[in-house]
Amino acid sequence: MLSATAAARLPTHLRLAGARTLNRLQPRALSKVVLTPPQILHAGFSTFPKAAYASAVTGEKKPFTSDKYPYLKRDHSFKKLTDQDIEYFKSILAPSGVSQDEEDLEAFNIDWMQKYRGQSKLVLKPSSTEQVSKILNYCNENRLAVVPQGGNTGLVGGGVPVFDEIIISTANMNSVRSFDAVSGALVCDAGCILEVLDNYLAERGYIMPLDLGAKGSCHIGGNVATNAGGLRLLRYGSLHGTVLGLEVVLPDGTILDNLSTLRKDNTGYDLKQLFIGSEGTLGIVTGVSIAAPKRSKAVNVALLGVSSFEQVQAAYKRSRDELSEILSAFEFFDRASIDLVKKHLVAGKNDPLESPHPFYVLIETSGSNKDHDDEKLNNYLEGLLTDDVVQDGVVAQDTTQFKNLWAIREGIPEACSKTGAVYKYDLSIPVPVFYQMVEDMRARLDDAGVLGEDKDVDCVVGFGHIGDGNLHLNIAAKGYSEKVVNVIEPYVYEWTSKHAGSVSSEHGLGLFKAPHLHYSKSPSMISMMRRIKDMIDPNGIMNPYKYLPEK
Amino acid sequence: MLSATAAARLPTHLRLAGARTLNRLQPRALSKVVLTPPQILHAGFSTFPKAAYASAVTGEKKPFTSDKYPYLKRDHSFKKLTDQDIEYFKSILAPSGVSQDEEDLEAFNIDWMQKYRGQSKLVLKPSSTEQVSKILNYCNENRLAVVPQGGNTGLVGGGVPVFDEIIISTANMNSVRSFDAVSGALVCDAGCILEVLDNYLAERGYIMPLDLGAKGSCHIGGNVATNAGGLRLLRYGSLHGTVLGLEVVLPDGTILDNLSTLRKDNTGYDLKQLFIGSEGTLGIVTGVSIAAPKRSKAVNVALLGVSSFEQVQAAYKRSRDELSEILSAFEFFDRASIDLVKKHLVAGKNDPLESPHPFYVLIETSGSNKDHDDEKLNNYLEGLLTDDVVQDGVVAQDTTQFKNLWAIREGIPEACSKTGAVYKYDLSIPVPVFYQMVEDMRARLDDAGVLGEDKDVDCVVGFGHIGDGNLHLNIAAKGYSEKVVNVIEPYVYEWTSKHAGSVSSEHGLGLFKAPHLHYSKSPSMISMMRRIKDMIDPNGIMNPYKYLPEK
Repeated sequence: MLSATAAARLPTHLRLAGARTLNRLQPRALSKVVLTPPQILHAGFSTFPKAAYASAVTGEKKPFTSDKYPYLKRDHSFKKLTDQDIEYFKSILAPSGVSQDEEDLEAFNIDWMQKYRGQSKLVLKPSSTEQVSKILNYCNENRLAVVPQGGNTGLVGGGVPVFDEIIISTANMNSVRSFDAVSGALVCDAGCILEVLDNYLAERGYIMPLDLGAKGSCHIGGNVATNAGGLRLLRYGSLHGTVLGLEVVLPDGTILDNLSTLRKDNTGYDLKQLFIGSEGTLGIVTGVSIAAPKRSKAVNVALLGVSSFEQVQAAYKRSRDELSEILSAFEFFDRASIDLVKKHLVAGKNDPLESPHPFYVLIETSGSNKDHDDEKLNNYLEGLLTDDVVQDGVVAQDTTQFKNLWAIREGIPEACSKTGAVYKYDLSIPVPVFYQMVEDMRARLDDAGVLGEDKDVDCVVGFGHIGDGNLHLNIAAKGYSEKVVNVIEPYVYEWTSKHAGSVSSEHGLGLFKAPHLHYSKSPSMISMMRRIKDMIDPNGIMNPYKYLPEK
Repeated sequence: MLSATAAARLPTHLRLAGARTLNRLQPRALSKVVLTPPQILHAGFSTFPKAAYASAVTGEKKPFTSDKYPYLKRDHSFKKLTDQDIEYFKSILAPSGVSQDEEDLEAFNIDWMQKYRGQSKLVLKPSSTEQVSKILNYCNENRLAVVPQGGNTGLVGGGVPVFDEIIISTANMNSVRSFDAVSGALVCDAGCILEVLDNYLAERGYIMPLDLGAKGSCHIGGNVATNAGGLRLLRYGSLHGTVLGLEVVLPDGTILDNLSTLRKDNTGYDLKQLFIGSEGTLGIVTGVSIAAPKRSKAVNVALLGVSSFEQVQAAYKRSRDELSEILSAFEFFDRASIDLVKKHLVAGKNDPLESPHPFYVLIETSGSNKDHDDEKLNNYLEGLLTDDVVQDGVVAQDTTQFKNLWAIREGIPEACSKTGAVYKYDLSIPVPVFYQMVEDMRARLDDAGVLGEDKDVDCVVGFGHIGDGNLHLNIAAKGYSEKVVNVIEPYVYEWTSKHAGSVSSEHGLGLFKAPHLHYSKSPSMISMMRRIKDMIDPNGIMNPYKYLPEK
């Protein structure tokens, strides 16, 4: 028998724990947090406080990327910018579309984590696809290297220049072009901010099929160019499935007009796919057509305490059976993660559950019928408790509790970075060996004598998207140490490669991971990638020094 | 309040209609139907009775494609097959892997609809990726043209030779390589039959994310190579989203080993996407890794009578709100479709509903909880009846009724072909103008004086996948008439192009639609496709004469 008051059917243990703990958590508005960026050694944030960028650019001057990584040499086939070039750009763009102002440029030259700093002398902000076409055609003819930039929220140095590349920003291309309220097809400019689009759709009963911490700043064009993953991938799939069409300007200025709103179209090679995840190395995405799902009327969040990673896997497997079509997130983190969050007061100073557990799982459901979803979730949770798969848990009873539970998971990257320095890795690993990576890394650092309260490395934490097989491995340290790096690398890549994983699950390659591509892709795959790059961008002007390893 | 006996809450009208009508329908096992192929002028079947192929190949000899379409000329840069070539293939393949037997060859030379007939003298059936690599490397070196073939169930002449191309069949590559019961990742050879894979997964609680009429014959490699759509696309998305990795042999024999089982991997261009829907023009898919969803425990089917296409759209829009995450099919057909089905006794001689309606909608739901799904469906149907969106309807009460309702929808293509000849078009069209195409075509044929009982054309019917915007436009005629063709074409393509539709929604291009590609793709898109083709297959040996228009 079903019950309309499903919430009342929660086991007492579960309900009480929830009420008690959740009342103690403080609401935390992520958008108001101001980060003081630590010494970030490796990018791995899955959340992105909106104010962080502002903080970053007002800090002390960081070293140039080219000084930090002396193996990088400017490609002398690229022309240096002249006054004549500037005049040309001024002739085709509005006055506000051409900036050489040093202060203005700094915000485009440096990434938000302050890890990479380029030396560009020019940022262009076209306001139409035709302008992008003219810019690229000119740059290609004149061998002027460029770097496309969206919201500058990338984590691997892909969106900022290395040397004097011209920055082409999509900031002035931010209109919704059309929305079909029957099919849910949204067509918009590349510079639309993800959160703005999501709000636009929310008013119409739809939702963007992707969501990420950087949503308040990132551009949809950049999301497409980096194949952004994020929090809704488990439910709605990747951009390779949800993007219906793209408008892309090729290096020679050709406009590929493939802004289809059709769900099915088998007329020729699916060219748009090449640009999804190409990180600006093949062209500039100027328009995006995307299939928006209906927004779910009911959303639930639960946090569970689990005694072993085997049980985390068991809980995940059962969630696919029992929550099935309403499951929208299955996130996990370990005890070390929550200890850091507590220590740095990132999301409250108390444990979310009565006693500590080695592992935690955050489950979200989204569906069209609150009663049905409550019942499915309650049956699932009761089953887990009865069969000792989980030891304890809480279910959010209102929006504040909902946000507080998510804040714990989303606070982990920030907490990791409070120690002083953090080595961050974003890996795809088969679920059965998912957590073994964390344990092996701990053992390795311990064996090397660098792990412990009075040592270089404070702790090793593991968290991430179990449903997508995406592990965020964070190693929190007191400061940068080459010795520590040499213990971690290339071991972390070799381990991942041995288990057929990916050395970049959702963050892309950029400058950081280009040299490590071979750990995840064979020589024949890399060779084919290079042939495609050389075919489409024969002069190599698009986002050079990145993505593919040195020839 | 929810009710555990949701079925009992069906409105009397609805329940009675269902019980009455469904009892009159006869169960129909599609796999036992033997088609006598009519004069098929244009491919458009969305269902594929298993026995049809056997029937087709035992019929009278059909004309060669090259005689039927004299504009096709053999490319003289291709070498003709010699005894020495045969010797080489015999040296690398098992004896059963090389066949020159004429009778054996006939089944590979002709497509199942008997529209296309090639003149190949050799079929090769490699049993490993390495063998495929050796074959292609040899053919590329020696300029021997090839046509890859899966289950030979294609509808546009893409899988059979035109002249003397060597047929490379995936029939001997049919093993499941691995299945991960936690993640649902299935890795298998390209020659595995779709239905065999689906049965394999059913035993493990999973389902293939695609389903089509040809499932009893088609190979998963062919499905991937043609980006097959089918009946589950609305729910699980296209193969661009569900395929996790591919193993592909390039024309020069290079093996692209990208059989990843990871859901997320942002390391470089997503090369596998190029091969999904490339119809064997870039390489041969030898292995497939695909994400299998959990099999739904509860499935419902309802058939509704609707008075206008506007109301069909209204019903669709509401289904996305109210059935949301459990909606797995939203199919439609018009009155003319059901008249044909009745006339030719394809799926019973009686109307499924008490009185005739201008439009019919078939809805399927799939979910994890039968009670919840019943309640959602019943609430949805009650709302539609109350608000006069639909006029009548039935809900299947058991497996037989479930099959009978689907049989009406699936019987339409067969019924269309019983008239003598049928002109078939598979189009993607924006939903608001979806049915206008059918009406415009009727008016045009009527104006031309060719539509009517005593005229060339008997009737024009429209059916298809509303949820995917995929219209099957079928024009049933007494026989082939050039006059009729000239009334239909190029009008049908121009109309589709004007409405930003696709001239091939799910069937691909093959030989049939290559000349019509420009109606759906711009010159810059086609030019880029050709550059990719020329780069990967510089000698043009892969499936020549097809896919791209003549240079």
